[in-house]
Amino acid sequence: MGDTRPRAKVGVVGAGHLGAAIADALVLRETCRRLVLYDRTLAKVEGEGWDIADAVPHLREQEVSVTDDLAAMEGAAVIVLAAGPTMTAGQSRLELCGRNAPVVRSLMAGLDEAAPDAVVLLVTNPVDLLTRIARDCTRRPPGSVIGSGTVNDTARLKYALARRLGVDHRNVHAYMVGEHGDCSFCVWSSAHVGGVRLADFPLDPDVDFAAMKRELVDFTHARGREIHRRKGYTNYGAAAAAVSIVECVLRDERRILSVSAPAPPAYGLPQRAVLSLPCVVGAGGVERSLVLSLDDEETALLHEAYARLESAFQPGRAAA
Amino acid sequence: MGDTRPRAKVGVVGAGHLGAAIADALVLRETCRRLVLYDRTLAKVEGEGWDIADAVPHLREQEVSVTDDLAAMEGAAVIVLAAGPTMTAGQSRLELCGRNAPVVRSLMAGLDEAAPDAVVLLVTNPVDLLTRIARDCTRRPPGSVIGSGTVNDTARLKYALARRLGVDHRNVHAYMVGEHGDCSFCVWSSAHVGGVRLADFPLDPDVDFAAMKRELVDFTHARGREIHRRKGYTNYGAAAAAVSIVECVLRDERRILSVSAPAPPAYGLPQRAVLSLPCVVGAGGVERSLVLSLDDEETALLHEAYARLESAFQPGRAAA
Amino acid sequence: MGDTRPRAKVGVVGAGHLGAAIADALVLRETCRRLVLYDRTLAKVEGEGWDIADAVPHLREQEVSVTDDLAAMEGAAVIVLAAGPTMTAGQSRLELCGRNAPVVRSLMAGLDEAAPDAVVLLVTNPVDLLTRIARDCTRRPPGSVIGSGTVNDTARLKYALARRLGVDHRNVHAYMVGEHGDCSFCVWSSAHVGGVRLADFPLDPDVDFAAMKRELVDFTHARGREIHRRKGYTNYGAAAAAVSIVECVLRDERRILSVSAPAPPAYGLPQRAVLSLPCVVGAGGVERSLVLSLDDEETALLHEAYARLESAFQPGRAAA
Amino acid sequence: MGDTRPRAKVGVVGAGHLGAAIADALVLRETCRRLVLYDRTLAKVEGEGWDIADAVPHLREQEVSVTDDLAAMEGAAVIVLAAGPTMTAGQSRLELCGRNAPVVRSLMAGLDEAAPDAVVLLVTNPVDLLTRIARDCTRRPPGSVIGSGTVNDTARLKYALARRLGVDHRNVHAYMVGEHGDCSFCVWSSAHVGGVRLADFPLDPDVDFAAMKRELVDFTHARGREIHRRKGYTNYGAAAAAVSIVECVLRDERRILSVSAPAPPAYGLPQRAVLSLPCVVGAGGVERSLVLSLDDEETALLHEAYARLESAFQPGRAAA
Repeated sequence: MGDTRPRAKVGVVGAGHLGAAIADALVLRETCRRLVLYDRTLAKVEGEGWDIADAVPHLREQEVSVTDDLAAMEGAAVIVLAAGPTMTAGQSRLELCGRNAPVVRSLMAGLDEAAPDAVVLLVTNPVDLLTRIARDCTRRPPGSVIGSGTVNDTARLKYALARRLGVDHRNVHAYMVGEHGDCSFCVWSSAHVGGVRLADFPLDPDVDFAAMKRELVDFTHARGREIHRRKGYTNYGAAAAAVSIVECVLRDERRILSVSAPAPPAYGLPQRAVLSLPCVVGAGGVERSLVLSLDDEETALLHEAYARLESAFQPGRAAA
Repeated sequence: MGDTRPRAKVGVVGAGHLGAAIADALVLRETCRRLVLYDRTLAKVEGEGWDIADAVPHLREQEVSVTDDLAAMEGAAVIVLAAGPTMTAGQSRLELCGRNAPVVRSLMAGLDEAAPDAVVLLVTNPVDLLTRIARDCTRRPPGSVIGSGTVNDTARLKYALARRLGVDHRNVHAYMVGEHGDCSFCVWSSAHVGGVRLADFPLDPDVDFAAMKRELVDFTHARGREIHRRKGYTNYGAAAAAVSIVECVLRDERRILSVSAPAPPAYGLPQRAVLSLPCVVGAGGVERSLVLSLDDEETALLHEAYARLESAFQPGRAAA
Repeated sequence: MGDTRPRAKVGVVGAGHLGAAIADALVLRETCRRLVLYDRTLAKVEGEGWDIADAVPHLREQEVSVTDDLAAMEGAAVIVLAAGPTMTAGQSRLELCGRNAPVVRSLMAGLDEAAPDAVVLLVTNPVDLLTRIARDCTRRPPGSVIGSGTVNDTARLKYALARRLGVDHRNVHAYMVGEHGDCSFCVWSSAHVGGVRLADFPLDPDVDFAAMKRELVDFTHARGREIHRRKGYTNYGAAAAAVSIVECVLRDERRILSVSAPAPPAYGLPQRAVLSLPCVVGAGGVERSLVLSLDDEETALLHEAYARLESAFQPGRAAA
Repeated sequence: MGDTRPRAKVGVVGAGHLGAAIADALVLRETCRRLVLYDRTLAKVEGEGWDIADAVPHLREQEVSVTDDLAAMEGAAVIVLAAGPTMTAGQSRLELCGRNAPVVRSLMAGLDEAAPDAVVLLVTNPVDLLTRIARDCTRRPPGSVIGSGTVNDTARLKYALARRLGVDHRNVHAYMVGEHGDCSFCVWSSAHVGGVRLADFPLDPDVDFAAMKRELVDFTHARGREIHRRKGYTNYGAAAAAVSIVECVLRDERRILSVSAPAPPAYGLPQRAVLSLPCVVGAGGVERSLVLSLDDEETALLHEAYARLESAFQPGRAAA
C-alpha cells in the first residue's frame, strides 16, 4: 500500500484571510510537526505567521516558519495553495478565474521545482477550474493535485440535515457534488442516515420531504454568500475543511471526500472534466474515483455543472 | 434539547479484565474528569485502580478513585456495569445468564440508591438479556439503561469490510444487529460506502460478492471466539466500544449505535423484546429507536435472534 | 474540592478579530459542547459565527449559536469578554483604557444579570486595568473575574527560550509577570529548565547569559508590536492563550497561570493593585494567589509596573 | 536539526501484560499509523493483537498487525522492547536480570538485523541494567537505545505532590532519579512548583515539610509493590509512561525525561554507569544528557544507586 508514513511537514501558500486561517487551524489541531507559511509579501506572512506561532506554546511542540521563498517548501508532504484574490462584490466567477489562473500556473511551476513529491491541495476559487489548470500545467503525478471541491458544501448540508433529524452529523451521509458553487447539488438518491435510507427515515408528520430537501440545498448554496455579505470573505469553515483533507493525506486515511478531480468516464463527460465528486483520498492524493449511482435528475445536474465550468474555463484558458 | 452539559463523573462497576480495561481506556482517552472504579473486592479494585491512576500524570488532569462501596457512584453521569463472571470454556450462554442475572439485579438496586440519575451502560454478557433484566428491575427511566449490544460486532464488520474495499472505516456503513453473539447478522440491504450502495461499489472482478459477505459475517462471528481461545477473555476491543458509547452519552452526541434496547413495535416482535438495534444515543441514554428497512431474510434473522434470546431468558428468570 | 464538573457552555462576548479567533479556536480544540458568540451588531456576529459553525462538521459534535442579546449567555460556565476597540497606531494605553472602561462596565452589568455564576475572563486591553474595573463593578465573587494577564507574554518567552536551549517548551519554566505590556518582566531568579536552574543550564560557550536574557525579554516585549505593525492587530496567539485558560477553568485543572488578579499582600503593594502574577486557576476562577520569591531588581520592576498601571487607571476611573 | 519527521510505524516486542497494555495505549492515544506487535508465541500475540485491533474502528484509521517474526519490524521508527518474564514473589532483582539479559541480547541482535535505524525503548526490568546490556551489544548508535528509567517513578511522585499542594500535576517539577526501583530518590533541591521553589511554596501550617517529603518518596517506592501485590503485575501506568516516551521520539519533541542512559562524567561515576537521569529525548533517542545540581545527600544517593546496580550487573553479565 505504498508509503503510509505521515510526513509531518506541511506548507501553506498564501497568507491572506484563508491561508492564515488554514495555518492557524493546522496548528490548533496539531496536524503536523513543521509548518511553513509562504507569501510573496514578507511583512504579511511575518504578521500572520508570528501570530500563529504564538499559539504553539499552548499546544504540543510544533515549528512554524514564514518565508517569501517557495524553495522553503522543500520536503513538505502536503502543500495547501491558498493564494490569489478572493471574490469581491459584483465580480463574476469568470473574472476571478481569469485573474487567478496565472497566479496558480506560476505557483505550480515554483512548487514543481521546490517540492515535486508533495500533494498539492488547491483551495483558491473557482477551485474546480483552478484544479484543472494546475493539473494541466504541473509535472507531478496528476492524482497528487486535488482541489477542496465540495468538501465544505457537503459538510454544510450534512450538518444542517443532522440538526433537522436530531442526530449526530457523523451519522448523516449525503454528498453535495458537481462544482463548488451554485451548480453544486445533493445526491439525494443515495442519502442515508445511520443505516436507514433518508427516504425511509421517520420525519415529523408535518415535515414536507421535498420542501425540506429544497430548503437544505438552498441553505447550502446561500451559506457562503450570507457569510461573505456579512464579513467580506469566508475563512474559518473552509480552513477546517482544508485541515480535514490535509490530515487524510498525511495519515493516508483513504477517506471518501468530494474533492475536485477528473470525472471518471462512467459519467459520460469529456475526459478533461474536473468536477467535485467522491474520491478515495490518501497519501498520494486521489487514490481512486468512485462512481455514484445518479438518478436522471442528478445526471442532468452533473452535466449542467460541467457545462457551466467549461464555459467559465475557456476565458480562463484564453487569459493564459 | 434538555441538558447537553457533559457531566464529567463516570463510574465503572467491576474491576475484572473488562472493567479495568474500560477504566484505563477512559483515562487514556481523557473522557471524563473524575472516574470511580468499584469492585466488591477492595484489594482487586485497588490493584487495578492505582495502576490506572499512574497513567494520569502523562495526560491531562483527571482524578481516579477506587471503592468497594457503591455509594461512591453518587453524582456519576454514566455508570458502566462490567461486573459478573465471563464465559468460560464449555459454559453455555444459559448458564452465564443464570449466574449473572442476580449479580445485575443486586447491582442495579444499589445503583438505583446511589446514582438514580445516571445512565447505566451494561457490558456484561449475555448483554441483551441482562439489559432486559436490568430494565425490568430498575426504578430509573427505562431509556437510561442500555447495553453495549452489537456496537463491537458492527465495528469489527465495518473495519474488515473497509480493509477489503481499501477505504477508511469511517466511510463504511453497515450494521450488525440482532443480538451480541452468534445470532447477530448484517443488514446488507442498507449497507453503503461513501454514498454508494455496497451492491454498486466496484469490487475487483475476481471477488464473489455473496462469498465476500458470508466471509465477513463469519469473521465477525468468529472474532470474539478466536481471541477468547487465545487469551482466555476479550477486553481491549470491548473497552474501546464502551468508551465510545460513554462519550456519546456524556457529550449528548445523539449518534446512532446498535445498542441493546427494546425493539420498536414496527418489527413485529413482542413488547418485551430487547435486542441490539440502531438507536439514537444521547444524554438520556436511548433517545429514539430507528426502524431499519429489512428484507425478508433479514426479518427472519431478527425473529430468530429474538427466539434464541427468549429461550435463554426464561431460565435466567427462573434463576432469579 | 467543590464541583469539579466541567460545564460545557462557553460564551464569547465580542465578534471582532480577537473574539472570532477565540471562538474558532474553542471549536477547533473541541473545548466545549455549546458555544455562544455575542456581538451588539447582529450582522457581524452572524458573519463570524456562521463561518465558525461551518468548521463543526469536520469535528466532534458541537453547537455554535450567535446572538446580539446578552441573555443568551445564561448557563455559561465561562464567558470570555473580548469586546471593545483595540489599540490603533499612535494611540496611548490611557486613551484605550478610557474608551474601553465604560464598555466593560456595561457588559459586566449585563453579564451579572444573565450569567451570575459564570467565570468571566477578560482579554480586552489594557487587560490588567480592565480586570480591576470589572472586579470593582461586578456583583459576582471577585475571584471569578480574571484577566488573561501575561499568559501570552509568558508563552512567548518560554517558547523563545526553549528554542534557544533546544528543548521542548513544556520543560521551560519562567514567568513574565507585572502587567501585560511593556512593564512586564521575567522572573529570572526562579527560572528553570527540566529540573535544572536556568543559571546552571549548560549553554554554548559563546553565549553571553546576561545578553541572552535581555534579548529574550526584548523579543517578548516587541513581539506583539511587530505583529501589530504587520497585520494591524493580533489575534491567533492571544486566542490560543484564552482557550488554554478557559480549559483550565472548565476542567478545574488548577494550573498556575500568570493571570490578572489582585496582588497578594506579601508583595507590599496597595490592596487595590491588580497585576499579572501566578495564580492557581480552577473552576472558580482564581483559586489561590502564589507569592514568587523576587530578588531586589524584580521587586523594583513589580512596583514600577504597578505605578504605571495606577497612573493609567486614574483617568480610566475619571472616564466612568 | 536533523530529520524531524515522525515516522509512524511503531513496534512492540512482547505481548505479555505490559507489552499488550503498551500496544493498546498506543492505539487509544492514536500515536502512530501502523503498529506491529511481536511475540515469539504466535497464538499469544494473535490473542492480544486482534483484541487491540478491535479498538481501531472506534478511533482514527490505524493499522495493527501481529507477528512472530522480528523481520516485520522493518521500517519502524521506535520499537518498545517489553519482552521477558516479570518479577514474581520472592524473586530477587539479580535473578530477574540473569533471566532477562540473554532475552534482551537475543532480541537486540534480531532488531539490529530487522530495524537498524529504529530507536529502541526498553521497558523490561531491571530496566537500567538491561539498557546497559542492550547498549553494549547493539550495533546501532548508542544514543538510540534508551530505557524507561524513572519516568514512571517521577510521574507518581509529581502526581502525589500535586495532589498535596492542590495544583495541576503539570505545574510540579521534581525528578525521581537514580534507578527504577528502591534506590530511586527525589532531587528535592531543585524541586519547584509553578515558578516557586518547593521549599518556598506555602504549605498548610500543620504540614511538616521534611515528613511530607519522606512520605512522598516512601509512597513512590511502595506504589509499584502495592499494585504488584494486589494484581500480580503492573502494566497500565507503565504503559502510559512508555507511550509518552514513544511520542517524544516520534515527534522529536526534545522533552527532558529521566530515562535510562549513561551518566555524564560530571557526576563522577565510572563511564559504564547507566542510570535514570534527565536527558533531552528526541528523534535520535537521547539527544543530550543534563547534569543536575545535586546537594551532598543527593550525590551520595546517586552513588549508592550506582553501586547497587553494579553489584546486580555482574551476575547478569556472568549469565550471558
